[in-house]
Amino acid sequence: MRPFQLVSRDDHPEDTIITIRGVDIGGDGFVAMAGPCAVESRDQLFTSAEAVRKAGARVLRGDAFKPRTSPYSFQGLGEEGLQLLAEAREVFDMPFIAEVLDPRHVDLVASYADILRVGTRNMSNYTLLQEVGRTGKPVQLKRGFTATVDEWLGAAEYIASEGNPNVILVERGIRTFETSTRNTLDIAAVPVVREISHLPVIVDPSHSGGRRELVAPLARAAAAIGAHGILVDVHPNPDEAKVDGAQALLPEEFAALMADVDAIIAALR
Amino acid sequence: MRPFQLVSRDDHPEDTIITIRGVDIGGDGFVAMAGPCAVESRDQLFTSAEAVRKAGARVLRGDAFKPRTSPYSFQGLGEEGLQLLAEAREVFDMPFIAEVLDPRHVDLVASYADILRVGTRNMSNYTLLQEVGRTGKPVQLKRGFTATVDEWLGAAEYIASEGNPNVILVERGIRTFETSTRNTLDIAAVPVVREISHLPVIVDPSHSGGRRELVAPLARAAAAIGAHGILVDVHPNPDEAKVDGAQALLPEEFAALMADVDAIIAALR
Amino acid sequence: MRPFQLVSRDDHPEDTIITIRGVDIGGDGFVAMAGPCAVESRDQLFTSAEAVRKAGARVLRGDAFKPRTSPYSFQGLGEEGLQLLAEAREVFDMPFIAEVLDPRHVDLVASYADILRVGTRNMSNYTLLQEVGRTGKPVQLKRGFTATVDEWLGAAEYIASEGNPNVILVERGIRTFETSTRNTLDIAAVPVVREISHLPVIVDPSHSGGRRELVAPLARAAAAIGAHGILVDVHPNPDEAKVDGAQALLPEEFAALMADVDAIIAALR
Amino acid sequence: MRPFQLVSRDDHPEDTIITIRGVDIGGDGFVAMAGPCAVESRDQLFTSAEAVRKAGARVLRGDAFKPRTSPYSFQGLGEEGLQLLAEAREVFDMPFIAEVLDPRHVDLVASYADILRVGTRNMSNYTLLQEVGRTGKPVQLKRGFTATVDEWLGAAEYIASEGNPNVILVERGIRTFETSTRNTLDIAAVPVVREISHLPVIVDPSHSGGRRELVAPLARAAAAIGAHGILVDVHPNPDEAKVDGAQALLPEEFAALMADVDAIIAALR
Repeated sequence: MRPFQLVSRDDHPEDTIITIRGVDIGGDGFVAMAGPCAVESRDQLFTSAEAVRKAGARVLRGDAFKPRTSPYSFQGLGEEGLQLLAEAREVFDMPFIAEVLDPRHVDLVASYADILRVGTRNMSNYTLLQEVGRTGKPVQLKRGFTATVDEWLGAAEYIASEGNPNVILVERGIRTFETSTRNTLDIAAVPVVREISHLPVIVDPSHSGGRRELVAPLARAAAAIGAHGILVDVHPNPDEAKVDGAQALLPEEFAALMADVDAIIAALR
Repeated sequence: MRPFQLVSRDDHPEDTIITIRGVDIGGDGFVAMAGPCAVESRDQLFTSAEAVRKAGARVLRGDAFKPRTSPYSFQGLGEEGLQLLAEAREVFDMPFIAEVLDPRHVDLVASYADILRVGTRNMSNYTLLQEVGRTGKPVQLKRGFTATVDEWLGAAEYIASEGNPNVILVERGIRTFETSTRNTLDIAAVPVVREISHLPVIVDPSHSGGRRELVAPLARAAAAIGAHGILVDVHPNPDEAKVDGAQALLPEEFAALMADVDAIIAALR
Repeated sequence: MRPFQLVSRDDHPEDTIITIRGVDIGGDGFVAMAGPCAVESRDQLFTSAEAVRKAGARVLRGDAFKPRTSPYSFQGLGEEGLQLLAEAREVFDMPFIAEVLDPRHVDLVASYADILRVGTRNMSNYTLLQEVGRTGKPVQLKRGFTATVDEWLGAAEYIASEGNPNVILVERGIRTFETSTRNTLDIAAVPVVREISHLPVIVDPSHSGGRRELVAPLARAAAAIGAHGILVDVHPNPDEAKVDGAQALLPEEFAALMADVDAIIAALR
Repeated sequence: MRPFQLVSRDDHPEDTIITIRGVDIGGDGFVAMAGPCAVESRDQLFTSAEAVRKAGARVLRGDAFKPRTSPYSFQGLGEEGLQLLAEAREVFDMPFIAEVLDPRHVDLVASYADILRVGTRNMSNYTLLQEVGRTGKPVQLKRGFTATVDEWLGAAEYIASEGNPNVILVERGIRTFETSTRNTLDIAAVPVVREISHLPVIVDPSHSGGRRELVAPLARAAAAIGAHGILVDVHPNPDEAKVDGAQALLPEEFAALMADVDAIIAALR
């Protein structure tokens, strides 16, 4: 038996559409979410935010708490980062997403962010899933890089079972034997999920590809296959990024990507 | 050190374009290749061929020798299948591809087919690779479902090192832990290969998805990401197909797929 | 650069030996840890504990909090389970291990258990790792079923970097394409880890095999390859177990396993 | 339905025992097969053969045809290698195994070798499987590094269905995300295969580990878990080996390995 029910399309045939500050996510729409991987400073954040807004992004990304493989790496700006994001939201009129790592920080992050993110390493952190479920805020749930589609929807069910149906699924690549990319983007997961669940599903071409050159091609594939949006790392100066600079786009590269993606969306209407 | 040289873009920066009976494969073009997985009868083959030609396919697929997991499964019509394919080529004006399994059959298959295919299970069958290399005929080389990109290009090098540069690479999905699809289409392999090799690379959405519903979405992703073509199973009566019926499209489904793919290609020009 | 330092053998060439209530884990010793997967009742726990103690196990396992794929499955007895475990410890003179899922429960679990376990789904839950690190109690750290050896040792480093060097690594199988077992036991990880880290490393043959028939063969392999111990599910009535009954051994099967394991350990001295 | 029948234990409950020049493979026995990966010269072969025979190996390994990832690597001595192996067989009284790559070489290799090997890259080369099946000679069938147990037994069925029941299965590691070893030895495959098939199954600790340090631990695990034997690379001068030197044992290392393995086998009787 599948480990989910509330998020299944069986009892809920129509698409879920989540509306945040006037932006619709799900259904027939396509929404670009973009910004720096980690918030590093006001300058870095505001330059990115202005650029992605201008190019057509409608939601701002930027993290204040980062999960790192080594305890000695940069761990994020914490609450200060959230304050900068909240400022940027007003200036550029974009709701923002921020990751939460610790169940004890959920209320803090939720007091600032419009959308909470549960990252790939925490997809099976059921304690955290329940806690973000309780807030009622929209939640971006990244697929664990080693999770099956069924386990991913089971994790969404943990959130939904707390009374929170506003889950946005993010396909961001899975771990395989192939090493020419950081992870293998499982692009087929988009139609697979849309068939069995009513939740919106978007694609993260930045973390799966892991290299700047691959981000635009993967974003085009996401638009063509029917994803509800994309989540893209953009940084004004990728070579000095504190986290994942190799995969961040320059503002002008993001604008070119958006032109192609818009053309595909228009062609398929 | 990478196990390839002749197929690398390093010493051969411009794209290879392979021309077969007036059809160009590679460069800026996009070519649909379609037809039944296995040739079963004249009727089945001709109905498929007519339908795919009409929908815009330019190359016919159809196998006469099939590699099967069980020795007791249908193994293909053999030479009779090749004769039917050669007939269909003339009637519908489409060059055709056919798989070869045995180095001792290479001359036979090459005497009929326009393009030889080396299948996923034989990607590391170096004896067979050398033998198809010697024919000088264009070769479709499917990625082993467990091969890295480097190993795949190493296999292409075996063909090229026999003096045959006409290799068409086919991404058809890799084996991963995910079971919601037959294999996981590694869509990122398309830009990865185009970056390091001058060979054309196409996508097989049928064998990777393994289910009819997934073929059109995956084909759209292939067109958007920059593949040089697609390879699609089409059958007039999939429920009675002797091989892989679950993934075969009906002729009308293939026509709808082609309309979307053409729209994407046009939008990106 | 490897994401660990304190747990590396480079600066700490001799094996770490962790002593808990007179039981040494690490170095040249071999310790069997056994008991029910989940504590269900006093009867079930005490019957298991008595049997495994008699057969030679020196540490009791039994969980009070269980991470489950579905939010609707049995989640464990909670504190009541810990109280039963603490009672069993005194009666059978065995220190016990219990899993902790939530950073807010760390103090509670640590107030009862002799060893805290971080499970496979939480291996990259850095918040939890830091919290168990702060307690100073020995921690069993299961390898994430999708974690590389380097990531696993990086997770151990998170615990060690809080000043807690008492980490026991548990190899419990990784996720691969093979489905004849629940996970693929990466038996080579034992010598690989012993080469680069000074921490004790044990094997869980129950969760990797996922079937009763495989537990004893895998336990023998663990003893022969040089693991510091094994972690085995034993249940007086596996068919009625609330969690993972298919892989639990009957007490008499565990006794037979121990006889073989002891013979191997003796033969290799 | 499983793709095998003749090799299943269902209709053939007792173990198959294959006797070659007085050496029994299968049943309750344990046989070490060892020698150089590739035959390079009489000296190299004879020094290895003498050493492994003295340490207790009963079957000689040594290949004359090697499948290589790059067409430009050393491909083996060909027939000259087979002649040297046949000479060594008489001098040291050991039957020998040699790999065959090309269906057109099967008769040649079979005219010299006592056991034919089908390598991991050719496990799904059905043409080759049928051809070695027709010889009636014992066949060592390596598991494809990406094959499931069912596919592996399906490949054995191809051989058996030609009337040749003398198949020796070799577990040699599968491809996974872990990179600390060359492949991940699926040690659980030994009891899994013994449960469903009557064929002998041995373990290759050299090609799975890929590093000298891991060979002895993995061989001990193989003996303890119930394999019918091991297949080990031994070279008098590994640093100068033309193929896979990093995993070859020195003669004295092999002797130490054999002492441990013999102790385990004796302890479990």
